[in-house]
Amino acid sequence: MRSTVVLCLAASLASVSGQTFQRLGTCPTLGCVLPPDQQDFLPGQQFDIRFEVHAPKNGSEAFNGGVPDEKFTATIQKDNGRTRSIADFFNLKEPSLEKWTFSWYEDLFAQDAKTPSVVNVASKIYRRVALYEPGTYKVTLNYFSGKTTTAEWVVRPIANKKKAKNVIFFIGDGMTTNMITAARLLAHKTINGKYQTLLALDKFPVLGHQMTHSIDSFITDSANSASALYSGHKSTVNAMGVYADSSPDLFDDPKVETVVELLVRIWGSAWGAVSTAFLADATPIALTAHTRSRYAYGPLIEQALNGLGNYSWTKTNGPDAYFGGGAEQFLAGSGSYLGKDYYAEFANKNYSISLNKTALLAAPKDKRALGVFCRSNLPVWLERNIFKDNLQKLSNDPAGGKGAATDLPGLKEMTLKAIDVLHTRGGNKGFFLMSEAASIDKQMHVLDYDRALGDLLELDDTVQATIEKLKSLGILDETLIVVSADHGHGFDVFGNADTKYAAAQGDDRKKRNAVGVYQNSGLSQYTVPQEGVSYGTGANFPVNWDPRYVIAAGLGANPDHRESYGVGKSGPRVPATTIPGKSSDDLYVNPTDRPNGFVVNGTLPTNEAQGVHSLTDVPVFATGPCQETFGGVYSNIDVFYKIANCLGLAHGTNKTVCDDGKSNGGNGKYNDGHGGHY
Amino acid sequence: MRSTVVLCLAASLASVSGQTFQRLGTCPTLGCVLPPDQQDFLPGQQFDIRFEVHAPKNGSEAFNGGVPDEKFTATIQKDNGRTRSIADFFNLKEPSLEKWTFSWYEDLFAQDAKTPSVVNVASKIYRRVALYEPGTYKVTLNYFSGKTTTAEWVVRPIANKKKAKNVIFFIGDGMTTNMITAARLLAHKTINGKYQTLLALDKFPVLGHQMTHSIDSFITDSANSASALYSGHKSTVNAMGVYADSSPDLFDDPKVETVVELLVRIWGSAWGAVSTAFLADATPIALTAHTRSRYAYGPLIEQALNGLGNYSWTKTNGPDAYFGGGAEQFLAGSGSYLGKDYYAEFANKNYSISLNKTALLAAPKDKRALGVFCRSNLPVWLERNIFKDNLQKLSNDPAGGKGAATDLPGLKEMTLKAIDVLHTRGGNKGFFLMSEAASIDKQMHVLDYDRALGDLLELDDTVQATIEKLKSLGILDETLIVVSADHGHGFDVFGNADTKYAAAQGDDRKKRNAVGVYQNSGLSQYTVPQEGVSYGTGANFPVNWDPRYVIAAGLGANPDHRESYGVGKSGPRVPATTIPGKSSDDLYVNPTDRPNGFVVNGTLPTNEAQGVHSLTDVPVFATGPCQETFGGVYSNIDVFYKIANCLGLAHGTNKTVCDDGKSNGGNGKYNDGHGGHY
Repeated sequence: MRSTVVLCLAASLASVSGQTFQRLGTCPTLGCVLPPDQQDFLPGQQFDIRFEVHAPKNGSEAFNGGVPDEKFTATIQKDNGRTRSIADFFNLKEPSLEKWTFSWYEDLFAQDAKTPSVVNVASKIYRRVALYEPGTYKVTLNYFSGKTTTAEWVVRPIANKKKAKNVIFFIGDGMTTNMITAARLLAHKTINGKYQTLLALDKFPVLGHQMTHSIDSFITDSANSASALYSGHKSTVNAMGVYADSSPDLFDDPKVETVVELLVRIWGSAWGAVSTAFLADATPIALTAHTRSRYAYGPLIEQALNGLGNYSWTKTNGPDAYFGGGAEQFLAGSGSYLGKDYYAEFANKNYSISLNKTALLAAPKDKRALGVFCRSNLPVWLERNIFKDNLQKLSNDPAGGKGAATDLPGLKEMTLKAIDVLHTRGGNKGFFLMSEAASIDKQMHVLDYDRALGDLLELDDTVQATIEKLKSLGILDETLIVVSADHGHGFDVFGNADTKYAAAQGDDRKKRNAVGVYQNSGLSQYTVPQEGVSYGTGANFPVNWDPRYVIAAGLGANPDHRESYGVGKSGPRVPATTIPGKSSDDLYVNPTDRPNGFVVNGTLPTNEAQGVHSLTDVPVFATGPCQETFGGVYSNIDVFYKIANCLGLAHGTNKTVCDDGKSNGGNGKYNDGHGGHY
Repeated sequence: MRSTVVLCLAASLASVSGQTFQRLGTCPTLGCVLPPDQQDFLPGQQFDIRFEVHAPKNGSEAFNGGVPDEKFTATIQKDNGRTRSIADFFNLKEPSLEKWTFSWYEDLFAQDAKTPSVVNVASKIYRRVALYEPGTYKVTLNYFSGKTTTAEWVVRPIANKKKAKNVIFFIGDGMTTNMITAARLLAHKTINGKYQTLLALDKFPVLGHQMTHSIDSFITDSANSASALYSGHKSTVNAMGVYADSSPDLFDDPKVETVVELLVRIWGSAWGAVSTAFLADATPIALTAHTRSRYAYGPLIEQALNGLGNYSWTKTNGPDAYFGGGAEQFLAGSGSYLGKDYYAEFANKNYSISLNKTALLAAPKDKRALGVFCRSNLPVWLERNIFKDNLQKLSNDPAGGKGAATDLPGLKEMTLKAIDVLHTRGGNKGFFLMSEAASIDKQMHVLDYDRALGDLLELDDTVQATIEKLKSLGILDETLIVVSADHGHGFDVFGNADTKYAAAQGDDRKKRNAVGVYQNSGLSQYTVPQEGVSYGTGANFPVNWDPRYVIAAGLGANPDHRESYGVGKSGPRVPATTIPGKSSDDLYVNPTDRPNGFVVNGTLPTNEAQGVHSLTDVPVFATGPCQETFGGVYSNIDVFYKIANCLGLAHGTNKTVCDDGKSNGGNGKYNDGHGGHY
């Protein structure tokens, strides 16, 4: 029997592991333990446990006629302790069995041939448990009379002392070291190779790198990676605050508690999120979201305000400051949860509501604050500050009108206001703020490097202003500031491009000769004053976005597109489009984008309209209490553990703040100290 | 008069600054001070000072009928001290006037039209001076009756205490964080998102970033950047150990002293260089080279052994260990200096000479050692370890025969042997070793990502073995290890590619659909054992270089080429070639490279056969004495100052080791302590 299993596994590995498609990420065998093998936990962090047994009906893994084992059992053992059933260990009633069916393609050939593999599943889920004692736990799933899948979990050491009163976590979405280098070149002047001024990030005392890969694929998306940063648990593309299971329900996947859920439960601190994206977008929403699909925007705003409705779970009572775009999920209508008016829902919970910069700046500091400044994402820094006419072309009024949102705050105004509110409301309990420069990523996706770098510079300017703000509030020394990213894009600058020369050349190959490499890259002209050009955007931005000699840059992963280098003045870019009469999933060069540029055919699947995320480790900059823990190279989940340790979130009991705001160690039901359920 | 000058400068700036071509980098005005404005110096570091006055005969800068001012004067002032002539300050005789003419193109239009601008020059050079007192020095060049060019120089603080006995400086040429991330993916296994083993680099306690740009262009080459790392002075593309002047002589440019010149002069330590490139290549040779042209290979090997012949300058007495490729400069013939046999030249200076791995391993530890293992660069790790048959195709016998070099050491064997020799010979005086993984860069240039990453993994394996070696010698604690790069390439991984599916598709667009992005990137198959595949290359390398699902990666800066992803088994890649009958400077897709791949047209000038360097900051990993000084973000020149400070090279006197090996503070002529000449 044993050898049969081994042979079967070997065959299965050869045909499907590491593949384009997976039956279920984290589950190469037919028995799935979620959280799976090799996961780490914060002591006291709440989570769900799901077991699945898969019986593929057809395909290379077909087994047992497609009938899953409904009598599977599961055990847990701490270090060398007693092996106990899951229900016994966590003092829970045995949950009822669930069953479902799903299908998948084993590879691209199967997809082309439309021959899916169908899998029947038997499953159980144990909800809202926690492990309090540091150590190693071995979880074993026994199924199909002799098969086993094991998972080793490590509960990290207790760190229940709060070392930082406040944490501000800046995320440059998609931001890499390469982009930071390019942004510095645009905004800061060199004389003979010496920068005369530097980025705020360049002055951070501690630098680290974090690995961004998913739990089950080496390229991540922003949902999954934000979730890893906020919870210490990696997940699957599009998932947040859960380990993705194979069930059809997007909201029943096994959950993990996030940093703001922990912080509110344990210390009763204030928390906020600020983003230049729509607020239901992955990076801001992952602070409170528990779903396998980031696209469930309406329900996720409901979760942010009121917590989960379907399961008992930690409530954050809603953010204390919540500023960004995305009016679609707040206006009553198809984009909002159950069609409700979320401006009213927030107002009913005593929020101030700001729909423009003027209102934001005037909002009271002592009241919870919602600010929604447009539909969709905020227009980027270049539109808000340089090409302002483009703003008028938009129909993005946050109140739902047909007009444009024009009285727009930037990341800096939103962040500084959030700090005022959070500092006031958090008081002695401190606060956690996440502030996201979202369009670094969004503009890299569409190969609009200038717009991406503009928003990167806005982030840097905001970091600088935040340090000054914290200083003026007298809380700089007690605030940990971390600036990092969630993933990269394969961007780099490789020379200059003489836009005047390129424009004068008749054919595509000659246009490419406008690019100057090595010694011909010359110096940055973005920092050279030019007569008649004055943006007045301050010291941390270029003095000229449209010089004759621009940066020549590329992404490595492209759709078909045209390239002319230099800034697009009419608004963000659409590099590739569909062709009328052809498939909507078949992208070609957009004839209206950079019409005088040269054609570059893509390196990506022809159904990709944009560039895609990349593998690279991303930088972590830290200053303040615990800064020394952020040096070196580590996983993105470690960013969570470092922050959690600094905030004293690792507890050996179910520590919960009572309604009076005083903390109460262990008010939940829990067992002999190994594990707890409540 | 003044306003005329200002107008003239403004016009000049508008037309030519930041341009594809420059009249002379570091000299936007008509008066040039070399070293120019904003340069830093180590106290006691020797250097030359050149002044040039330019008189353009024609073009947008035409001035004074093309007649340069031969009566220019120059002064120097420390802080608020007395302003003195250069000759007086450094106690030198006034040098004689030099004159020459050069021409350049103001832009690409001028180049196409073949209308160069011609410049007449008057110049003086003050050789072999030093500044001993920390502080700010203002150098002023007065010319054309009223024009001035000033340079502010900063002499950094004294640091004359030796904190590390030894320094080992590993350079991954062209290595970026993105490449390190990709190499980790290939060689180290994850289970559910947790790496089961890590790179040696991942375990370094301190991480920094260094900015690599040139003094006069934002993209560097390896000569210039190596020179910055070794001397603390940025330079111009192709230049090493000098500030590039405009004279025709490649060897008369104003020099700066390098780390090994300082170390030998001050402490009498041993030093060595190891590279997988030819030894006259930029990164190894820049330790001793002083030239504006990295291509003067023969003379540079002569400089490495015997120092400069044309000017009085610090001698290193030749390296104690010198291992790499490049027999062309050692075999008597057209590649060597004056046609001499440099095997004999080195042997005459009592070197052991090794021409293969067997001889290298047997070479005595107490004798100076030269090892030259092939002509040109060493074949890469993939050829030496996996595709060994390809070695036989080469005609690279280091003894000059027609056959192939087959008994080849790798970076690890060369580095460990060098440590043995340097530790033995350095004794109490310690040693400095530079060890370069050269073909990370060379293979990135030809878009051969697998070969580049193989050599990166060889570097990491060598770092790991070095740490173990130092431990076994009992000198780990007294040795600073720094691992960094000299510049980047815009490389990143953006997904997987199903090579089986791609091969089965008939047209270029369909082949691209083999690429899996985000969740479809799946897991690394390079770490999955496959039946029949066993390389036996150890824990720090992939178990399978040729899985069905490979990484999909790109460079951002490409020549025209064909892409099929996956490893090239027949040897390194030639992505673009010329077409018979067309210009030799006009590159097209190479029809024999990846013949079944899809065509990707380039983003670079059509005279580029390869990818090019990029802007990105590169990582610095440090461990050992002074490791804490390597955190954060800084310039590449700061790497020199950090190493120099750790080695106690900053002195307020002309500290020089006497022949008996004892040090002697200040044996040269020098003046009142402000500056010295000898």
